[in-house]
Amino acid sequence: MFKSTSTIVVHNHFRSSTLLNFRKNYPLLFGGRLFMSSRIISVVARRLLSSSSSLKNKNNKNISNNKVPTDWGYKKINKYKPLFVEKIMAELDPKIASQLEPFRQSVKEQGDLVRQLKSENAPELDVKKAVAELKNRKRLLEEKTLELAPPDAGFERTKMEDLIKRRFFFDNSFAIYGGITGQFDFGPMGCSVKNNMIDLWRKHFVLQEQMLEVDCTVLTPEPVLKASGHVERFADLMVKDLVTGECFRLDHLIKAHLEKLSSNPKTSEEIRQECQTIVTKLDGFNKDQMNEILKKFKIKSPLTGNDLTEAIEFNLMFSTMIGPSGQVKGFLRPETAQGIFVNFKRLLEFNQRRLPFAAAQVGNAFRNEISPRSGLIRVREFTLAEIEHFVDPSNKSHPKYDTIADLQLNLYTACNQMDGKSSELIRIGDAVDRKIIANETLAYFIGRIYLFMVKIGIDQRKLRFRQHMDNEMAHYATDCWDAECLTSYGWVECVGCADRSCFDLLQHTKATNVKLVAEKDLPEPKMINVVEIVPNKGLMGKHFKSNAQKVIQRLNVLNENEIKQIEEELNAKNEFILDLDKENQVTITKEMITIKRYEKKIHVEEFTPGVIEPSFGIGRIMHTLFEHNFRIRQDDEQRTYFALPAIVCPIKCSLLPLSNHQSLKSYVTEISKQLSSADISFKFDDTGSIGKRYARTDEISIPFAITIDFDSLNDKMVTLRERDSTEQIRLPIADVVNIVKELSMNIRQWDDVRNQYGIFDPTQSSSEPPPQ
Amino acid sequence: MFKSTSTIVVHNHFRSSTLLNFRKNYPLLFGGRLFMSSRIISVVARRLLSSSSSLKNKNNKNISNNKVPTDWGYKKINKYKPLFVEKIMAELDPKIASQLEPFRQSVKEQGDLVRQLKSENAPELDVKKAVAELKNRKRLLEEKTLELAPPDAGFERTKMEDLIKRRFFFDNSFAIYGGITGQFDFGPMGCSVKNNMIDLWRKHFVLQEQMLEVDCTVLTPEPVLKASGHVERFADLMVKDLVTGECFRLDHLIKAHLEKLSSNPKTSEEIRQECQTIVTKLDGFNKDQMNEILKKFKIKSPLTGNDLTEAIEFNLMFSTMIGPSGQVKGFLRPETAQGIFVNFKRLLEFNQRRLPFAAAQVGNAFRNEISPRSGLIRVREFTLAEIEHFVDPSNKSHPKYDTIADLQLNLYTACNQMDGKSSELIRIGDAVDRKIIANETLAYFIGRIYLFMVKIGIDQRKLRFRQHMDNEMAHYATDCWDAECLTSYGWVECVGCADRSCFDLLQHTKATNVKLVAEKDLPEPKMINVVEIVPNKGLMGKHFKSNAQKVIQRLNVLNENEIKQIEEELNAKNEFILDLDKENQVTITKEMITIKRYEKKIHVEEFTPGVIEPSFGIGRIMHTLFEHNFRIRQDDEQRTYFALPAIVCPIKCSLLPLSNHQSLKSYVTEISKQLSSADISFKFDDTGSIGKRYARTDEISIPFAITIDFDSLNDKMVTLRERDSTEQIRLPIADVVNIVKELSMNIRQWDDVRNQYGIFDPTQSSSEPPPQ
Repeated sequence: MFKSTSTIVVHNHFRSSTLLNFRKNYPLLFGGRLFMSSRIISVVARRLLSSSSSLKNKNNKNISNNKVPTDWGYKKINKYKPLFVEKIMAELDPKIASQLEPFRQSVKEQGDLVRQLKSENAPELDVKKAVAELKNRKRLLEEKTLELAPPDAGFERTKMEDLIKRRFFFDNSFAIYGGITGQFDFGPMGCSVKNNMIDLWRKHFVLQEQMLEVDCTVLTPEPVLKASGHVERFADLMVKDLVTGECFRLDHLIKAHLEKLSSNPKTSEEIRQECQTIVTKLDGFNKDQMNEILKKFKIKSPLTGNDLTEAIEFNLMFSTMIGPSGQVKGFLRPETAQGIFVNFKRLLEFNQRRLPFAAAQVGNAFRNEISPRSGLIRVREFTLAEIEHFVDPSNKSHPKYDTIADLQLNLYTACNQMDGKSSELIRIGDAVDRKIIANETLAYFIGRIYLFMVKIGIDQRKLRFRQHMDNEMAHYATDCWDAECLTSYGWVECVGCADRSCFDLLQHTKATNVKLVAEKDLPEPKMINVVEIVPNKGLMGKHFKSNAQKVIQRLNVLNENEIKQIEEELNAKNEFILDLDKENQVTITKEMITIKRYEKKIHVEEFTPGVIEPSFGIGRIMHTLFEHNFRIRQDDEQRTYFALPAIVCPIKCSLLPLSNHQSLKSYVTEISKQLSSADISFKFDDTGSIGKRYARTDEISIPFAITIDFDSLNDKMVTLRERDSTEQIRLPIADVVNIVKELSMNIRQWDDVRNQYGIFDPTQSSSEPPPQ
Repeated sequence: MFKSTSTIVVHNHFRSSTLLNFRKNYPLLFGGRLFMSSRIISVVARRLLSSSSSLKNKNNKNISNNKVPTDWGYKKINKYKPLFVEKIMAELDPKIASQLEPFRQSVKEQGDLVRQLKSENAPELDVKKAVAELKNRKRLLEEKTLELAPPDAGFERTKMEDLIKRRFFFDNSFAIYGGITGQFDFGPMGCSVKNNMIDLWRKHFVLQEQMLEVDCTVLTPEPVLKASGHVERFADLMVKDLVTGECFRLDHLIKAHLEKLSSNPKTSEEIRQECQTIVTKLDGFNKDQMNEILKKFKIKSPLTGNDLTEAIEFNLMFSTMIGPSGQVKGFLRPETAQGIFVNFKRLLEFNQRRLPFAAAQVGNAFRNEISPRSGLIRVREFTLAEIEHFVDPSNKSHPKYDTIADLQLNLYTACNQMDGKSSELIRIGDAVDRKIIANETLAYFIGRIYLFMVKIGIDQRKLRFRQHMDNEMAHYATDCWDAECLTSYGWVECVGCADRSCFDLLQHTKATNVKLVAEKDLPEPKMINVVEIVPNKGLMGKHFKSNAQKVIQRLNVLNENEIKQIEEELNAKNEFILDLDKENQVTITKEMITIKRYEKKIHVEEFTPGVIEPSFGIGRIMHTLFEHNFRIRQDDEQRTYFALPAIVCPIKCSLLPLSNHQSLKSYVTEISKQLSSADISFKFDDTGSIGKRYARTDEISIPFAITIDFDSLNDKMVTLRERDSTEQIRLPIADVVNIVKELSMNIRQWDDVRNQYGIFDPTQSSSEPPPQ
């Protein structure tokens, strides 16, 4: 779940190049890769250009209507244009396809060029240039596709956001204090949807796959995140106003400046061309290159006109001090994965030292984004659900592979991306056979992710798995796929699924000198040559005191080549310098150690496990879930609701007496009790007309409504209404709780229940109390 | 869930007096109030005296055996003596009772004196002194009681901790990096117990009571915690070594120094007396008094002998910066409650503006303890489950009060504490009638807390509800009860339950000028005189620009008296100064406002709701749960296990084929599938003898074991074993999954199932495969 660059253009403008080489191919949950159409890019980019905290009081006058919270205090912004999302449909339309053809062709030509350069081992710079151009062409294709897409009549983001706010699914944190960007509080409905999603995630992954779930701390001491690479490289570039200290994301700033410049009629065609070239290639630029652009175009603060600092690397982790001394620096974890890696030994032990096994963790992570935006999609505090599946690197088969091999998924392969083609439906089994997906285990998780997403209510037509291209991946990674969902913000990465090889465990071993390995039985015992350093513990203790243990540990993890080198040094100088860790060295003399060589028969072999990591951004999935399930009643524009699957709905049913009449009360009490003891969440509502109550309960996505009317007094029956179809059935009070339970647990479907009881016309029911 | 002083002595030495006046009566979950016997106080206090980070490399030599992690790195400490816990039993023994009598009498005398002084309105200082002495006597009684208690044969803490560590229920975080104090990682078993507890909590409280659950952010901007009082007063006193910078909790330091001094045979009787007096009264001392003691006894750093600083107030919140500018200061929330208070308006709206309603939140909170200790009991990062029940202060009845009124609880009333009596069983209904518990709603929650604790497996004999005494409570609080559990650390507060009146909402209104009120219908409309400030909005806008809205808001919340005062000032000087907030003032002139007076008929009345707050420390409850359910098999000292109720057990059943023989495999597969699809967590284990496998699965508290033997091939039956009784039954494969499900959901009990199928003697089953 790391930031990275990407081949898709929009992302380029939202992520700086400082992250270029850091876990490049990592599932990018919170990185960026928001694929937006150019129509909205400029609006969004402009309004979110600067770090929002710096805009506090400045822009209030020019802009109107929708409030967007700043770091501290609200500012108003222009109404954005909704982006319509039926891209996939569009691609099926032959007229649209023909318009896209030249764009596809242009991508393919460049893709072929890149391939050719690589096969010819062309100079790195040439390859890089060609790749940058490829990315540019891919972006143009992506934008054109979204531009040509017909409007999605079912979706308007403003209406959805109004509903989310009005019924407090979630909203900006600390609003009475003016609000703060990038932090959201989930109200009762949002909190419950989130809990239900996590609960289903646990059942689908942890329980079904017998994973080892852990719950590790948020506060993480610095050395751990140094080893993982976060301290050094988990940063974005920014510049500061030299007078006011206001901060700007550098890539946003440059982009906005150059776009403004291009759109100025006085600008020469030559400059305009240059601006556009820079904007499309911004993603690939490093700190120096960005500084050069700053200078060349004399870019100032867009708010004050003041001079700016040079580019500053801003680490995205929140730092704090642990303990009272002020000497132990710590960070809020930027991901949950490290908690699993540092517990690897305990988990392996718990699993009776057997591989493969998967560990999982659900918890909050924190990233100090320079400019958070897009609702739940880029925030400073978010919930991750991560899995680390540890496996013998030489055998990545999976025992349950067969259960998903026949699934047809919408795969957007690296190859198709290079060729300017779109994603295509491919059977997972075929993708593995054709070596599109690197191995069975990775494929298995891709299949399971798909099944999970569909189960909770993601629209499968708006879900694709995009493979990382070679140039997106870090050196250690084998293969990486993102589950991307189409939303009004474009394609949003919601789940990453990467084969990370043994990188993480090796990093922690390097930092701690603790071996993080597993053992496997050899098919037959074999003789090996062992080279070993045997320390003179007494002498070492005397010499290194409290450090002795550390020195011995360090000597223990040296490999054959390193020992050989040491031996040569000892022979030459009678001593050698040992790097204990990044900061400390010790001098070891000949007397302190003996180098032993012998043959040994071994029955088991040690190895560092590989890691396959599916990583879920719960907030992003929630955003998608709300978008994909937002509905407006055909007969009434005002009546909006979420057609969520019952299993994720916050409240499973409403209990609505047709009137407040005393005679209905005992039924209400009776059914309430039954619902409570069956652990079914329900909402009692007796105010307003029944139509209003339906509308109110639809809004918070209650899938089923039990209505008690005056006929109930005679026939001991109630009506049950389904939210999406608004169909009703009439059934015995004795049955209703059980039926609602089965429906909400997805054990039975509405169609089935309706067939059992038949459709009921509610206008037939009596709305008058019986004569006394 | 706040720190506070307490009348019980041990706590005094663990909490400094700086917290004395801050939310004094607040449920003290993480505050302290660890009631320990004197036997362990000195050991524990000595070893935990200094901030652990400062002891890193110093004490390694003198101490041995058990490792205790420091802030960063392990140090070794003396084996502690386990404290045996059958206190309640002890009090029932007449021989012990007679030994306790003089202690009880001594408390009662002092209690009576305090009552008398109060009734006579004696000078505050006299009352304070008398209360300090009362606390001292209460401590002596508490210690004597624990001292006389017979050993609890069932419990040895070292053995329990060994099991917890060995099977990775939880363990110190970042151990491969040397570990860090006050932070724990939950392994698969601990994580699952925790999740199951939280899940049951949600069902018991949120679902059953239809509470509004929210999920708010951890990162909290400073102004919010200024309003709540945390920034100013949420602190402990410490001193620093002037040379090395090492930190010491001041109360710990003084206590250790004086105890060492008293135990020195050369110390005069007079000094010894003085030391003891100070130690018992330390809790009541403020910063100046502690500084005096430091000077008087010339206390130096116990580690280096260096001079120390004066007392420093150390705020216990972790601070960080939000956003890139470095200008927005924030803290990690020290409790989850504030997230609910700041969302009050949204929640009231969600509840259709009706009271009462309760909001709930489960989440992590953070406190930068100077010296964390006692496993999960005092940590830096912990999970809270909090409820804020908002209610009309004039009507604290509860509709479901009857459902708990007949419960008999072990109540330790303030009165009994004053009288030196112990806790006693009282019917809740009687406690309310006798005005021991302040109101029905508070009583209802106390009853529900009791039911929850017993349901998850807390030993009800070791659970008491202790009322805060007057002098423990903050001025605004009405009544406060803590659910305390008896553990090897003494009585530990696990849940607080307080009637906090309207304090919190008023504080946030004061800070934000946002009215946090509810409305209620009046029995009949009434005429009232309204005094209102009508602002000249145009003029204000011109004058105050972006601040105008704030000024108008501020004028809106002024009360009648304040308006009257303003009117007088205006008449005198034509202008007045308005405090906008703590930092800003504005001058308002006569032209800007009109003061209107008129009569108005009102149908509803505004009021600030009162808050009743049950607050659960999940980690502390878990610790207690493990202690109360730790068992050693009578026939084998080595066989330890946790007898947890099946509903909280991590894994509900094990699946154990008697042999690896091929013929049993299809049964294993079949039952595995059924268990999976019934969402029952299970563990397959086929290594080692069946006895070893039972022991291994007992350790991780698996309550039921399904064993497949060779007879299963013929009779299609399996055996089912229950963990605590080790009884076995034999039942059809077709039944077993359903029976396990019912047992693990607490729908059926083992006795009932055993009666249905009859006890089975496993020695009769065949351990040989059938002849082919």
